[in-house]
Amino acid sequence: MNYLIIDKIIKDALVEDGVFDDITTNSILNGNEKATCDIIFKEDGVLCGKDVFNRVFDIMEDVEVTFNFEEGQFIEKNTVVGTLKGLCCKILSGERVALNLLQRMSGIATITYKLNKILEGTNIKIADTRKTTPNLRYLEKYAVTIGGGINHRYNLSDMAMIKDNHIQAAGSIKAAVDLVRKKHPFAKKIEVECESIDEVKKAIEAKADIIMLDNMNYEAMKVATGLIGDKAIVEVSGNIDEEKVDKFRDLKINYLSSGSLTHSVKAIDISMKNLKRFD
Amino acid sequence: MNYLIIDKIIKDALVEDGVFDDITTNSILNGNEKATCDIIFKEDGVLCGKDVFNRVFDIMEDVEVTFNFEEGQFIEKNTVVGTLKGLCCKILSGERVALNLLQRMSGIATITYKLNKILEGTNIKIADTRKTTPNLRYLEKYAVTIGGGINHRYNLSDMAMIKDNHIQAAGSIKAAVDLVRKKHPFAKKIEVECESIDEVKKAIEAKADIIMLDNMNYEAMKVATGLIGDKAIVEVSGNIDEEKVDKFRDLKINYLSSGSLTHSVKAIDISMKNLKRFD
Amino acid sequence: MNYLIIDKIIKDALVEDGVFDDITTNSILNGNEKATCDIIFKEDGVLCGKDVFNRVFDIMEDVEVTFNFEEGQFIEKNTVVGTLKGLCCKILSGERVALNLLQRMSGIATITYKLNKILEGTNIKIADTRKTTPNLRYLEKYAVTIGGGINHRYNLSDMAMIKDNHIQAAGSIKAAVDLVRKKHPFAKKIEVECESIDEVKKAIEAKADIIMLDNMNYEAMKVATGLIGDKAIVEVSGNIDEEKVDKFRDLKINYLSSGSLTHSVKAIDISMKNLKRFD
Amino acid sequence: MNYLIIDKIIKDALVEDGVFDDITTNSILNGNEKATCDIIFKEDGVLCGKDVFNRVFDIMEDVEVTFNFEEGQFIEKNTVVGTLKGLCCKILSGERVALNLLQRMSGIATITYKLNKILEGTNIKIADTRKTTPNLRYLEKYAVTIGGGINHRYNLSDMAMIKDNHIQAAGSIKAAVDLVRKKHPFAKKIEVECESIDEVKKAIEAKADIIMLDNMNYEAMKVATGLIGDKAIVEVSGNIDEEKVDKFRDLKINYLSSGSLTHSVKAIDISMKNLKRFD
Amino acid sequence: MNYLIIDKIIKDALVEDGVFDDITTNSILNGNEKATCDIIFKEDGVLCGKDVFNRVFDIMEDVEVTFNFEEGQFIEKNTVVGTLKGLCCKILSGERVALNLLQRMSGIATITYKLNKILEGTNIKIADTRKTTPNLRYLEKYAVTIGGGINHRYNLSDMAMIKDNHIQAAGSIKAAVDLVRKKHPFAKKIEVECESIDEVKKAIEAKADIIMLDNMNYEAMKVATGLIGDKAIVEVSGNIDEEKVDKFRDLKINYLSSGSLTHSVKAIDISMKNLKRFD
Amino acid sequence: MNYLIIDKIIKDALVEDGVFDDITTNSILNGNEKATCDIIFKEDGVLCGKDVFNRVFDIMEDVEVTFNFEEGQFIEKNTVVGTLKGLCCKILSGERVALNLLQRMSGIATITYKLNKILEGTNIKIADTRKTTPNLRYLEKYAVTIGGGINHRYNLSDMAMIKDNHIQAAGSIKAAVDLVRKKHPFAKKIEVECESIDEVKKAIEAKADIIMLDNMNYEAMKVATGLIGDKAIVEVSGNIDEEKVDKFRDLKINYLSSGSLTHSVKAIDISMKNLKRFD
Repeated sequence: MNYLIIDKIIKDALVEDGVFDDITTNSILNGNEKATCDIIFKEDGVLCGKDVFNRVFDIMEDVEVTFNFEEGQFIEKNTVVGTLKGLCCKILSGERVALNLLQRMSGIATITYKLNKILEGTNIKIADTRKTTPNLRYLEKYAVTIGGGINHRYNLSDMAMIKDNHIQAAGSIKAAVDLVRKKHPFAKKIEVECESIDEVKKAIEAKADIIMLDNMNYEAMKVATGLIGDKAIVEVSGNIDEEKVDKFRDLKINYLSSGSLTHSVKAIDISMKNLKRFD
Repeated sequence: MNYLIIDKIIKDALVEDGVFDDITTNSILNGNEKATCDIIFKEDGVLCGKDVFNRVFDIMEDVEVTFNFEEGQFIEKNTVVGTLKGLCCKILSGERVALNLLQRMSGIATITYKLNKILEGTNIKIADTRKTTPNLRYLEKYAVTIGGGINHRYNLSDMAMIKDNHIQAAGSIKAAVDLVRKKHPFAKKIEVECESIDEVKKAIEAKADIIMLDNMNYEAMKVATGLIGDKAIVEVSGNIDEEKVDKFRDLKINYLSSGSLTHSVKAIDISMKNLKRFD
Repeated sequence: MNYLIIDKIIKDALVEDGVFDDITTNSILNGNEKATCDIIFKEDGVLCGKDVFNRVFDIMEDVEVTFNFEEGQFIEKNTVVGTLKGLCCKILSGERVALNLLQRMSGIATITYKLNKILEGTNIKIADTRKTTPNLRYLEKYAVTIGGGINHRYNLSDMAMIKDNHIQAAGSIKAAVDLVRKKHPFAKKIEVECESIDEVKKAIEAKADIIMLDNMNYEAMKVATGLIGDKAIVEVSGNIDEEKVDKFRDLKINYLSSGSLTHSVKAIDISMKNLKRFD
Repeated sequence: MNYLIIDKIIKDALVEDGVFDDITTNSILNGNEKATCDIIFKEDGVLCGKDVFNRVFDIMEDVEVTFNFEEGQFIEKNTVVGTLKGLCCKILSGERVALNLLQRMSGIATITYKLNKILEGTNIKIADTRKTTPNLRYLEKYAVTIGGGINHRYNLSDMAMIKDNHIQAAGSIKAAVDLVRKKHPFAKKIEVECESIDEVKKAIEAKADIIMLDNMNYEAMKVATGLIGDKAIVEVSGNIDEEKVDKFRDLKINYLSSGSLTHSVKAIDISMKNLKRFD
Repeated sequence: MNYLIIDKIIKDALVEDGVFDDITTNSILNGNEKATCDIIFKEDGVLCGKDVFNRVFDIMEDVEVTFNFEEGQFIEKNTVVGTLKGLCCKILSGERVALNLLQRMSGIATITYKLNKILEGTNIKIADTRKTTPNLRYLEKYAVTIGGGINHRYNLSDMAMIKDNHIQAAGSIKAAVDLVRKKHPFAKKIEVECESIDEVKKAIEAKADIIMLDNMNYEAMKVATGLIGDKAIVEVSGNIDEEKVDKFRDLKINYLSSGSLTHSVKAIDISMKNLKRFD
Repeated sequence: MNYLIIDKIIKDALVEDGVFDDITTNSILNGNEKATCDIIFKEDGVLCGKDVFNRVFDIMEDVEVTFNFEEGQFIEKNTVVGTLKGLCCKILSGERVALNLLQRMSGIATITYKLNKILEGTNIKIADTRKTTPNLRYLEKYAVTIGGGINHRYNLSDMAMIKDNHIQAAGSIKAAVDLVRKKHPFAKKIEVECESIDEVKKAIEAKADIIMLDNMNYEAMKVATGLIGDKAIVEVSGNIDEEKVDKFRDLKINYLSSGSLTHSVKAIDISMKNLKRFD
């Protein structure tokens, strides 16, 4: 885990939530009381974000967290996944920031896991996109891998993706690919987004590393994948959900990418309960 | 709008997305080409985040944005809500960060709007919680108000909320309220979370400013609101969705608060299309 | 204490003072010498800022601080309030930043303590204002509480205060209060600043949570407090000093607020003396 | 003015004061109202901080400030020193941060001006120290110069000052000066703090650039300055106030340094009044 | 250019150099004097860094820069490459930071240009490495492209490079490539560093995208490039200077990478001269 | 060492290099493997930067560094100067950032050492300039001292240096010196850059603390140093290299300053080798 990124996220979030100035807790507790508290999954889901959760309380200081499951395990409803032990005031004040992160990451891992599950027995993997929450991309792309998914490019600088507007600007797919390859011949892969069989043919000719079939119907995708063969990696994109994903099973494609994994997260319901004081 | 907060979010997001090092766009365009481009709602929803969207391109420089609708208006599917005009490369490179923000904020405004709509004709308002996306709370709470909702406390320091653990620590509701009021007698309101009629009675006695009915059934809420009368503001919390919210219509409560407004956002599908070059 | 705020203040101050590039100390000492040193109150005052003082040397590393008194205790002139023990170079280089903070905080706690002392036997408490030193508000408001004072609103966002200009803009006190309450019905208290009995009456009607009597004479305050009774908290503001504060003793007011607590701090004279080397 | 430093101070202060989330102003005004407002000195003092005051409203945007006097002019009670003109909401929200800075800086310039005035006709100048408010040193040292004072070293790295502890550590004044000069022979001046005539003699021998007479009585200072002649710059330090400063008039010293200039600032009472709306 | 990165570098450098507190210039000039000044190449070299140079004075404000040559042009000794016009104090204070950047970037572009020149008529291009100056990588890699070179991977996250230690850890080249490809099958290229013909064969089998010949002799490189053919991109690394680079001319390799381009920069001698005052 | 500066440099550099997202290492190692690794000088040079190197791995965590030589020692080619021991993945990922810093600092210390060596037996010392790498000045000036050199002014604010443009602006050397001294009579030294014997005479009259002989020939320098005697420190500046420096031996000057020490660093070739795994 990249703690230079994570710590910044957590510290900013702790400031945002006024965690060190919790007027309720600080009025009622004297600061020395100790307690334990359980972390409970209130619904089924994949556990994701243990290190981040721990780091929240490392930064808060004086609370130890123990998890009973591995990162990425599927957890059933009402399971106690872990326990906090330490200063009661820190547990109460840090609860919301820690859970906000864990719930979101577990939500992303869970939907990725479910979609991948449906594709079991095929060579197709679920991939993410750049439709992530601003400034949480690092955590969200990580959560996708924990759910068994694959990371598409991180941002605009680490891979080239040629879309319709780029093709239009360059004059042709060939021209666009050549322009990018001329400037970045070495370290970067080039993907071309295609909306028709004709475009797929041109992308193959241009030696694109990856070809994306964008919103094509089943028949078109069948033809396209036949043409591509091993000449490029194949990505299919579109509005993918648990129902639709099944129909891709017998296509020779490599990746199904979906923005909703990260732009429309459904947080897993996780809470901290059973706070018990001790000396 | 608090530009000191917003600009930080946007600049960090632009860096995160490598926006100024867009290897595709920068290889294909020479940087002087100009274009217009439409912003289109691909599904029904409330428009929210115009200022933030504009600010993305202010920071990118050389692109002007014009919106055809007011912040908060309900937009129908396939409507062109606005247009960008300026340097083509800036439009292409800034697209994703700008849309990621607009889609999320419009998603939050839309669900708040829908829930409020169901409660029309009552005095009940939808309220948010602290279950927001880390470091986007400012934008998310703003989106809730644009959807017609009310902001609950911003964070742990600007209002006191006494929960079961605080009550246990203090010995009683009365003791907890007194401790908080002693330390913060002036600027802060005090809310007590109650799970039973008995607790509601004690919260009234303790002169809580706000009483929250937590996961009570309808009958209990009826009794509770009768006891409270005008002695405190009444908040009801629980897992609220479009179906359940209707049943609260005839209760004398002030606010229904819901974490899912912000922790499980469904982004509105908005895209930038019809890029046209001009000189 | 909110270490995320405090550490930033301290680290910035250490950079400002060039503490790690102390050309005098670093030329003369080899860096391994050890010493003890006393912290001495050179005049009477309330000790305030122990945690901040400690944190300076935590950040400097290799110096331990022991205080002989509790935070908030009244200290007599020439008392040794604590001792430093550790690397001599760190003690010498960190001295000024640590003392600058301790002297200022103790100065604020001391004047608050003295004013409160005069009001002993009444229900009136001293309160602070927003007239604090830029970027030290957190420490200064904390020092006020250590001196026995009460914190007024932290800033413009956590409580509403309606002043003459706001009343004029809204048309009337009633209109102003209604506008604020409509937008912030839930988490925020509303205070109205009144300069006449007539305004006090209108503020009561508008159901202000707090009424401030601004520069009224004694007779007017007597009438005003009679009208208000238990309908609102009463704050009195004005140029308050040790002499004037006594005349408020028999008024039924809750808080006396004073900007000079923080805008015109008289630092307590504290120094570090008796440096002794040891091995 | 160093805007990289100043802007950071101002932006942090605006965030601290919640200036862009002024719930009172933003509830009552629609944001387009315009107004003018006067800046008034409520007591005599030196005007200092015009650029900083202006910069607050530059950062707030949409308000223009005009001052009627020069930086450093002595202003009489009840004088309108300047006027603001622009968006009413920005004037109201930015008022406190702008005044907090102007009042403090004018306070420092004023006391420096008064002390210097007393020394008129001599060659002695008032100098500041490092006993400044943490993270405002830049502004405070600037205010000292506006009041006619001289800046002592900025921090521990830009000049060497040898105190009793350094002398003890080095074994002698000579050894201490030599050690510093060996490491910093080029760009740095060296000052020695002396508490006796004997130490003064040794400092002269060691060729200190500056000799500080620390808490010496009048007779001792007379002897010391006689010994020093033109061989070093002479600084006198001690608890200097308006009464005591006069007795130094006939001594052959160059600088009187005083920590209270900056550690115990008495803010000048300045307010913004006569807000008038216009279209 | 990525101004979010560049501005941070420049602003930090301006603070580092105390540019806004230039005690010499600020004592002598009143701040309103205007002047022009020439930028002169004192030795032959490639002009690189115009935008960065301009940005220094944009941030300083009140100085306009005009360059007479294009970015990347080869400039002969004693040529006036551009002129500054504006406030004299800003020209004097900003000079060093602006030149430090321009000289370094032009130095890197120049050596890259010279090495590429020697390889003219071949398909071999000069490439950079990660041996860049800490926190100036963005500018240095840009300067390499201006000199006609190619950028190798930006950092450890945007491309995989398998070295001897990785091979040893994985057990074999095949295992290492497979492990990386399994985790990063989509967006990332994989390079293998080979020290022998045997390793080259294994890298080909493992389907490495790029094969680096590390410190091989000419004969070995000849064999290796024969084996590789079009199956991978070929990079040669080693201690390359103007003399050695010539011997690679007839090898079928794609890139020669050299750390010294950036870790041992020889700055081009550029100065600002002929300052002329005007009104 | 000023860790507040150093840590910022290192953390920024670690982020720049993507050190925590090393896709090669993280794919191949599981994160628990341990190893030792040697740090080897591949050419002769002065070891400089041990603390910085250590701090890189302190920030990476889980690696211990042991050096076998003192900071500043001259190391012969092929010497193992130190060893790392700890988590294998951290050693591999942190290698480049750590070496980039160590190589550069050792390069600066080495050239300074060599130039000083040539001047052995004289009173002349090598001094640095402000021609340093942007934002690495602190480390580079430190490396100069480790090589036995002397630090010239750190930046524009800690010493005054009057150049030709300043003289022209002020009217004369005398006027320029007087203007600076009037504003900064206390803490700052004043240097005058002279290009002729006439200017040297005027600088002496104006009582400059330091006189710089700028690009004078040997005879002129002889005359100039005769005139100056003990009235000022003498600095000579110009394009100094190992050959030219010898000819200054018999001149009565104090410092030879050279920009190339830092603007044209030749990094020492240092590498990490012999990685050995252990349990």
